[in-house]
Amino acid sequence: MDLISKLTEIFRRFPGIGPRQAKRFVYHLLTQSASDRKELAELITELSGLVKTCSRCFRFYTSNEKAKSIRECPICADPHRARESLMVVSRDVDFENIEKSGGFNGLYFILGGSVPILEKEPMKRIRIRELIERLRAETDEPVREVILALNLTPEGENTQEYVLREIAAELKDKAPKLSVLGRGLSTGLELEYSDADTIKNALKNRY
Amino acid sequence: MDLISKLTEIFRRFPGIGPRQAKRFVYHLLTQSASDRKELAELITELSGLVKTCSRCFRFYTSNEKAKSIRECPICADPHRARESLMVVSRDVDFENIEKSGGFNGLYFILGGSVPILEKEPMKRIRIRELIERLRAETDEPVREVILALNLTPEGENTQEYVLREIAAELKDKAPKLSVLGRGLSTGLELEYSDADTIKNALKNRY
Amino acid sequence: MDLISKLTEIFRRFPGIGPRQAKRFVYHLLTQSASDRKELAELITELSGLVKTCSRCFRFYTSNEKAKSIRECPICADPHRARESLMVVSRDVDFENIEKSGGFNGLYFILGGSVPILEKEPMKRIRIRELIERLRAETDEPVREVILALNLTPEGENTQEYVLREIAAELKDKAPKLSVLGRGLSTGLELEYSDADTIKNALKNRY
Amino acid sequence: MDLISKLTEIFRRFPGIGPRQAKRFVYHLLTQSASDRKELAELITELSGLVKTCSRCFRFYTSNEKAKSIRECPICADPHRARESLMVVSRDVDFENIEKSGGFNGLYFILGGSVPILEKEPMKRIRIRELIERLRAETDEPVREVILALNLTPEGENTQEYVLREIAAELKDKAPKLSVLGRGLSTGLELEYSDADTIKNALKNRY
Repeated sequence: MDLISKLTEIFRRFPGIGPRQAKRFVYHLLTQSASDRKELAELITELSGLVKTCSRCFRFYTSNEKAKSIRECPICADPHRARESLMVVSRDVDFENIEKSGGFNGLYFILGGSVPILEKEPMKRIRIRELIERLRAETDEPVREVILALNLTPEGENTQEYVLREIAAELKDKAPKLSVLGRGLSTGLELEYSDADTIKNALKNRY
Repeated sequence: MDLISKLTEIFRRFPGIGPRQAKRFVYHLLTQSASDRKELAELITELSGLVKTCSRCFRFYTSNEKAKSIRECPICADPHRARESLMVVSRDVDFENIEKSGGFNGLYFILGGSVPILEKEPMKRIRIRELIERLRAETDEPVREVILALNLTPEGENTQEYVLREIAAELKDKAPKLSVLGRGLSTGLELEYSDADTIKNALKNRY
Repeated sequence: MDLISKLTEIFRRFPGIGPRQAKRFVYHLLTQSASDRKELAELITELSGLVKTCSRCFRFYTSNEKAKSIRECPICADPHRARESLMVVSRDVDFENIEKSGGFNGLYFILGGSVPILEKEPMKRIRIRELIERLRAETDEPVREVILALNLTPEGENTQEYVLREIAAELKDKAPKLSVLGRGLSTGLELEYSDADTIKNALKNRY
Repeated sequence: MDLISKLTEIFRRFPGIGPRQAKRFVYHLLTQSASDRKELAELITELSGLVKTCSRCFRFYTSNEKAKSIRECPICADPHRARESLMVVSRDVDFENIEKSGGFNGLYFILGGSVPILEKEPMKRIRIRELIERLRAETDEPVREVILALNLTPEGENTQEYVLREIAAELKDKAPKLSVLGRGLSTGLELEYSDADTIKNALKNRY
């Protein structure tokens, strides 16, 4: 297989990319200057050294620190965050969007995925062991509230049920307060096309 | 203009219908039996006699009653509905969807439209006069709470602001309690694609 | 079932219309004046009397003629059309679009449908008997060329094969010249997304 | 700007990629192994050395040859191709799709772009100078036919007109035979939605 085909194959595995667009990516790179390509290659290589996984929240973060001893992201290390509040999300992109909204000042925990319906080994899909451990850890500032912030899709709701069940089973009466994000009208919603659950919850949360 | 063209023109004015689909409708009718067409024509004609506008909530409803004196829809006439609670919606389709959800047991009021942004004569777009009058009416069961259930779109929010402002200006301290539907995650929502307002409200309404 | 529901049911059977849009159609009619509704009802009723099916080409056409003896559409009756050339199409909408293009001056024949792949009784899906009869008819101006103008979709190609096979089997050496529409680039096409057949044909038909 | 943001910025410039998908690409890379990332970086770097631009047709091709003297792609160097026939296309992806169709055995010429409508300096958008030179070149096998294979879009047709005009003006009576791809029905087309040009051409090219 030649170089163009090899690169096309790799781009095909990028999320949401089909064979045609993968090929277009290669031709796009070919129309760039050699120095632009070199920059891209170097940045990709640097990911291995500079991007680390936080040992507390498991999110990816960039760091120049060489020391391998400390592996805590800036948010987990920030003394001004409300450390007793832990928001559990599926992926880094969810964390980013929530953090960007500016509405939350606590800490996060990245599950690293979600649990498909009928999945027989959910513990292999998400970091449930690590989450339980995080909640059990006897740190000076224990978690008092866990907020599950998962997609309001069937898979998201299945993940939510699984996480709630596991926390209850493992931590029993030592479990922190558990809550989930409120339901209601989200921006852009038209009432004509809303489902009954959304309407009922919007009514309950009227203000 | 021949008959087929005339009918096509009328179907073109149906909501969401372009010239091609309008023409398809005519051909669809042509492939039906003469008796099917006659039934459709009769039902359309009957709309004038059988469908009335409720004098209280202004929604359309079907009635065989000949008497012109009573013009109240079954919901407004139902003694088991919570009469002190009034939900204000833009259109009949919104009412239908909310009523179908089964989450509300009060009465409704149909504004008959919404107020576009920068509209100079909003009172011509919606039944604001009629709403104020409805709230002023000295009935035995006064409205204690008005729930605005409008689309969470720019036009819906503009309508909401206008209605709230008018009620406050007209009814002053005699105004009922005013509320709007709660915001939060609506069914199907993915956190990666949520806006800041939705996230903040979902967080505030967590449960 | 009440009137609004009955009408909604009928509109749901219109091509491409789901339950929500069907209901919107009814509300659209309700916001019209009674005289507008009456006009629509009358036009629909008139379809039965004024729209006839041409006995030659089977297309629908509008006519004020009461006489039942003559049932020929203006195109089939037009002495200036090239009567030896017959274009066979699936539906009235196809005929309309081709006639609007102004590129053809012969006569038409409407099959009234198409033959799905693996259909066991294709003769029940399209007017193949009537087409054979039309080609056999000893009129003063016999058909010398049949042009099949069918969609370039799997179902259209299946219909084409079936019609060609039937004409060959039934008319044998008395069959007129048979042709199909040329293939090539159609307006809007991008070469990057063209299939091999289209490219090969476009190359063969280069000019 | 940190590493993740820098990489996101670069992926945003990939064709058809918005900010959200660009970010997803970075997270996708982060979930890969360090060796997978290294492989991608190396392949991108190798593009500079191994992918060359053919000096005859200007398409990109992969080559291990170190010698800088020969810069001819395998197709231009292939003695079995019909060298008197030259197909002119906009981009490499068009060339690829046409070559994959197997319908053409001549040589190609990549314009490297297209000419937008009202563009004042079309010679800066495509390799028109190089094309004229290629046609003028006194090689042992002169080009006898130029086939323009451009998109049937407004921009593609504008490019076609410009190229035809320039060849005529520059080469005058020494110009090779010029042709464009044939028009007609392309795969998937439905007659109901075809434009007049396509129908007329399909009729002319019937077979």
